[in-house]
Amino acid sequence: MALDTVDPIAWARPLFQIDDDAPIYLDGNSLGMLPRRSLERVTEVVTEEWGRRLVRSWGSWVDLPTDVGDLLATHLLGAAPGQTVVSDATTVNLYKLASAALDARPGRSVVVSDRANFPTDRYLLQGLAQARGMELRLVDFPDLGGPDPSLLRPHLGTETALVSLSHVDYRSGALADMGAINELIHASGALSLWDLCHSVGAVPIELDRTETDLAAGCTYKYLNGGPGSPAFLYVRQELQRSLRQPIWGWFGQADQFAMGQGYNPLPSIARFQTGSPSIVGIALVEAGTGLLAEIGIEAIRAKSLELTSFLIDLYDSWLAPLGLELATPRDPARRGSQVCLRHPDAYRICRVLVSEAAVIADFRAPDRLRFGCAAPTTRFVDVYDAMLRLRKVVQGGQYMSIDPEPEQVT
Amino acid sequence: MALDTVDPIAWARPLFQIDDDAPIYLDGNSLGMLPRRSLERVTEVVTEEWGRRLVRSWGSWVDLPTDVGDLLATHLLGAAPGQTVVSDATTVNLYKLASAALDARPGRSVVVSDRANFPTDRYLLQGLAQARGMELRLVDFPDLGGPDPSLLRPHLGTETALVSLSHVDYRSGALADMGAINELIHASGALSLWDLCHSVGAVPIELDRTETDLAAGCTYKYLNGGPGSPAFLYVRQELQRSLRQPIWGWFGQADQFAMGQGYNPLPSIARFQTGSPSIVGIALVEAGTGLLAEIGIEAIRAKSLELTSFLIDLYDSWLAPLGLELATPRDPARRGSQVCLRHPDAYRICRVLVSEAAVIADFRAPDRLRFGCAAPTTRFVDVYDAMLRLRKVVQGGQYMSIDPEPEQVT
Repeated sequence: MALDTVDPIAWARPLFQIDDDAPIYLDGNSLGMLPRRSLERVTEVVTEEWGRRLVRSWGSWVDLPTDVGDLLATHLLGAAPGQTVVSDATTVNLYKLASAALDARPGRSVVVSDRANFPTDRYLLQGLAQARGMELRLVDFPDLGGPDPSLLRPHLGTETALVSLSHVDYRSGALADMGAINELIHASGALSLWDLCHSVGAVPIELDRTETDLAAGCTYKYLNGGPGSPAFLYVRQELQRSLRQPIWGWFGQADQFAMGQGYNPLPSIARFQTGSPSIVGIALVEAGTGLLAEIGIEAIRAKSLELTSFLIDLYDSWLAPLGLELATPRDPARRGSQVCLRHPDAYRICRVLVSEAAVIADFRAPDRLRFGCAAPTTRFVDVYDAMLRLRKVVQGGQYMSIDPEPEQVT
Repeated sequence: MALDTVDPIAWARPLFQIDDDAPIYLDGNSLGMLPRRSLERVTEVVTEEWGRRLVRSWGSWVDLPTDVGDLLATHLLGAAPGQTVVSDATTVNLYKLASAALDARPGRSVVVSDRANFPTDRYLLQGLAQARGMELRLVDFPDLGGPDPSLLRPHLGTETALVSLSHVDYRSGALADMGAINELIHASGALSLWDLCHSVGAVPIELDRTETDLAAGCTYKYLNGGPGSPAFLYVRQELQRSLRQPIWGWFGQADQFAMGQGYNPLPSIARFQTGSPSIVGIALVEAGTGLLAEIGIEAIRAKSLELTSFLIDLYDSWLAPLGLELATPRDPARRGSQVCLRHPDAYRICRVLVSEAAVIADFRAPDRLRFGCAAPTTRFVDVYDAMLRLRKVVQGGQYMSIDPEPEQVT
């Protein structure tokens, strides 16, 4: 396809393991593809670092969480070094940061989030609010808009301790204005906590410039770190020493190997670690992040917007007439790297797309098809073919024979 | 060596990656060796499950944490299925369980542990106690004994909410009597939380029979799961539904992929999960655990006791006369699978052992050399040669030229 021949980052796709007969994969926003270098790296870590050097490798492993954190920060988060660490699951990191934020705003009784926020974010905030007798206020934003600053403002006040939002909405792909929202949050005296799962590696992020307080995100989507790979967290430099990370573990302890009495956390971002870091997992994050750093986030974003715009053009021509509804902002500046289409039979259509049309997308309850455009691996021809096949599936109506009961998809 | 020729589990060592010229490794209690099958398994997970099947693999991955938990439970923990899950770091698991236990004993104000307990255990209990205005009572047990029930009893009472101890002491290797201690704990109305890091895979554990309430442990020592591999946790069946796991994440949620409003935890052990599990890490845990299950924990324990007894015999003959002090119980029934020797220059001796005598042991502040005997990989000749070389290092005195400042070892 002509668009692919002029793609300036077309060289990146062969760096991933993609079989010639592979299905069209539009779910890199759920689990990113395998960089070829990742298998090499994991083999090296397992056979050489673990297998041969054994416990002696800890001399270098011990800095891996902050080293890979800095790699990520510098290339993809718009953050100076010393503020990011790769550690634990996203949920655990959000918990640590939210708990620390609530401790830092005593006397304030409200946590604000988005009712459409990713479930784990809502659940953990609900748990923390319940344990502390606080209110979790879930704001209803219009479906396509994400957290609009003007709609958020009335919910912020002197009682607000923390505002926790997603940078890119996991369903609609709406992209929030972090700078404007952080300004509002700070005006109320609250702290901001951003979930970057659906933006990191796809959208340029400017944590320092937007004066973000706290952030966390996963590494298994656009960062291609592998299933359930360790997540990252960011804490603004000035806040680090004043925050109380709730899970006091030996990897957050100053002079860790003195095994001393009494917790005395490190004066750095490393204090937000808990137990022994998952070295094999972090090495895979390093491989995936390093590859994105070489491609460059600006080039990724440029191609991503072309891909999603192309998808929306095809939607307009082929799918709107069939009754599918666009559930992603049309304004490129307001969307991430995915496009959602709504249809009452989205679940069944998704099943047929995967099983009979060799298009892997995902279903998001109750009625959305989600197509992720991971710029390093997705070609324009993939988007074209996928929409063509989607049209055929919807027109053909064979999805009607599928059991409508949703099963587990991720 | 004759003892090796009659070793009934000598067949296991070739199943690990061990070079002919490898140093003598007596640190499997810190980081276990690499099973050959683990590289095969990780390659399969990365290239096939992740690389080729991509997000479709979640259909099987989603049960991996509880499946591997059950494998571990059945073969190594003396626990019926449905009570164990592989998830997060040990520190995070201990935090979840301790927090849940404290919530389950409202009005009780004291947490009891061992002043010699592993640092992360003490730190996280200190953090939880501080957050709740409770007292952390650290009991001083005699150096060699571990938590003696008769010395523990006076510290338990109607104010005790939780007692958290290690099954095997990380320095002395003293083995606690879980059954007797659980009985005392329950008599006081408190809950028990055991750290199994230094016993799992080396010592038979009987969580069900001893009526343990809660337990957690790592998988990177005797289970050979690799550096920082995901940990496990156990919650007694009857307690599961009544406990409030503090980190509410989407992998603990019933009907997870409905992405619904409001946290409604699963009715099973899976509610103790948080975020997306680390699949590559858990697959490595499965490989290591499966191998130990094939060898059999009784055979492992029998050889382990012969190894540590042999080491102590050599100590008596060669090292006691040089002033080293045995810091591990002589009674085999009261020790795990490691032996500690004390010497004022332990740090420097350890450095020379590693760098000049090709013996990898570890140093534990302030004055201990720790030798772990991982039965599947350690031969009697390894113990013999290591003690011979240790004698030579101590006699030769060349360690005196080493900088006495401890550096990081794990």
